[in-house]
Amino acid sequence: MNFLEERILKDGKVKAGNVLKVDRFLNHQLDIPLLEKIGEEICRRFADVPITKVLTIETSGIAVAYPVARALGVPLVFAKKSRSINLEGKFLVAEVKSFTHGNINRVLVSKKFLNPGEKVLLVDDFLADGSAMQGLISIVESAGAEVAGLGIAIEKGFQEGGSRLRNLGYRVEAVATIDAMDAETGTIAFR
Amino acid sequence: MNFLEERILKDGKVKAGNVLKVDRFLNHQLDIPLLEKIGEEICRRFADVPITKVLTIETSGIAVAYPVARALGVPLVFAKKSRSINLEGKFLVAEVKSFTHGNINRVLVSKKFLNPGEKVLLVDDFLADGSAMQGLISIVESAGAEVAGLGIAIEKGFQEGGSRLRNLGYRVEAVATIDAMDAETGTIAFR
Repeated sequence: MNFLEERILKDGKVKAGNVLKVDRFLNHQLDIPLLEKIGEEICRRFADVPITKVLTIETSGIAVAYPVARALGVPLVFAKKSRSINLEGKFLVAEVKSFTHGNINRVLVSKKFLNPGEKVLLVDDFLADGSAMQGLISIVESAGAEVAGLGIAIEKGFQEGGSRLRNLGYRVEAVATIDAMDAETGTIAFR
Repeated sequence: MNFLEERILKDGKVKAGNVLKVDRFLNHQLDIPLLEKIGEEICRRFADVPITKVLTIETSGIAVAYPVARALGVPLVFAKKSRSINLEGKFLVAEVKSFTHGNINRVLVSKKFLNPGEKVLLVDDFLADGSAMQGLISIVESAGAEVAGLGIAIEKGFQEGGSRLRNLGYRVEAVATIDAMDAETGTIAFR
């Protein structure tokens, strides 16, 4: 069992509706030394891959992507979930359904931050049904850039996102993959 | 002129409505070495102050607060802007008006992440009218914790937030303070 799996068992909580609550360390309170280790591990998994940019999606992805981008020495771009008044100009857009919130978000990345030929590593805190990542993939590819891979902190392996993306040929690396979890007993089984 | 002021002049863009666009380095694409330097500078300004936690607010505050919390060796908590289905339990709540978006957000922090007696450094990318910071201050103080200070990347010194918070006795440190800016000429004057 690795450091993240240990931490999930210690401080994570399984809730009804396939929700894994990790607010003590990953998406409300942030344990920075843990995020640093997650970042290092994601970098290690993609050490053989050329990467020119890290792309994530607000909000919780930012703290996972920050140490990855720092270690790789490349800029970090985060996709925004709605158009704000100081986001003018031209955007790459995808529609993404939020597993957590149940709603559909428009996701935007300014065209000037994704150039043709770039090798983009996608990073996020969770991979579940994969819709956020599919939105980012469509944005990267519509820019003429290339998806170098997907680096994920926690994959919910019992949902279809990871296997669908791997079947499409993308390299997906998750630091912790959950094969099953049970809200009644609180048990979590890792791959 | 310091490193952040230089960068604002180089890559920032003044827009109508007192908007300073810094999406090339601070709130859409993130220049990690620059954020590291901002984090170091905020830490340096508060070197004499005991701090047990860093508190910021989603989204753009997270990347500024991350290197601050790492350097201080304390957890980072980010306030959330709306209630999501996996944020259950008890929350400290404040209402915050967004200068950028014009709407009112409920801002929430789980009570379990702010304990009485904690010394909390508030960090954000911008300080303008100060409403986000006032919301965080009310959350910290309602938890029986203490505001150790406010560390800001860019203060819009021509708006009233900074002076109002200083008049209330809070220590506010901004890495760059803008005294005036003009959308027609594109000029920016620093304090």
